Amino acid sequence: MLTRIDHIGIACFDLDRTVEFYRATYGFEVFHSEVNEEQGVREAMLKINDTGDGGASYLQLLEPTREDSTVAKWLAKNGEGVHHIAFGTADVDGDAADIRAKGVRVLYDEPRIGSMGSRITFLHPKDCGGVLTELVTSAGTEH
Amino acid sequence: MLTRIDHIGIACFDLDRTVEFYRATYGFEVFHSEVNEEQGVREAMLKINDTGDGGASYLQLLEPTREDSTVAKWLAKNGEGVHHIAFGTADVDGDAADIRAKGVRVLYDEPRIGSMGSRITFLHPKDCGGVLTELVTSAGTEH
Repeated sequence: MLTRIDHIGIACFDLDRTVEFYRATYGFEVFHSEVNEEQGVREAMLKINDTGDGGASYLQLLEPTREDSTVAKWLAKNGEGVHHIAFGTADVDGDAADIRAKGVRVLYDEPRIGSMGSRITFLHPKDCGGVLTELVTSAGTEH
Repeated sequence: MLTRIDHIGIACFDLDRTVEFYRATYGFEVFHSEVNEEQGVREAMLKINDTGDGGASYLQLLEPTREDSTVAKWLAKNGEGVHHIAFGTADVDGDAADIRAKGVRVLYDEPRIGSMGSRITFLHPKDCGGVLTELVTSAGTEH
């Protein structure tokens, strides 16, 4: 069961400049940053609020680390903006299986590692009204 | 001060079909629906989670009601997908003034009426890394 908006993923050309925009304009601070080589991104997580399920909602700022990453290709086509949205669940495996059984394409056979050691998968945007949709189970927690 | 992700605004061609997608796929139910003639949209709010500031996070599904609405024009250019993101604040007037003073274009001189009687304004996406950004103060509350 999806119990929160986990994050909004925003693609940008210059992570440092974008982090500074969110800090200077709104006062949002970097909660966590990392490089995900598999996804081909350098990212910063800005925590915005706690959520009623014991988790939190973040902005995830994403800069591609290589030209063949999906985010680099997306930026070349669309320019900067909202890249995906993510819902949090205690059971990404079960929810992905249920959603696949309903005919929505799930992009990974098994969840992969996302931000802060979470386990993630993506749903095909063409099956989700144009919205690239991620499912996330946080690391070491039940949310 | 912005204290939550209030909602993610998703533009669609057929609101009823999109509401049914979110219900059937994820179990999300309609919390509120309305027509906003000023904005030229018919909308459904799906509540996803409570937030630590006493508010909540929603998906806002938007179908244009007339061809000259901004959402209709956006759909004609971009197709269905994420149209905007919104942050919640107890003081949309003060935050909009502060943000305008930093050089970010605020689209309305005074906040207008948004979903569920809230007071809203928008920031220019070209000043926000391609992200159309809304600020929201909920009706009759301090969040």
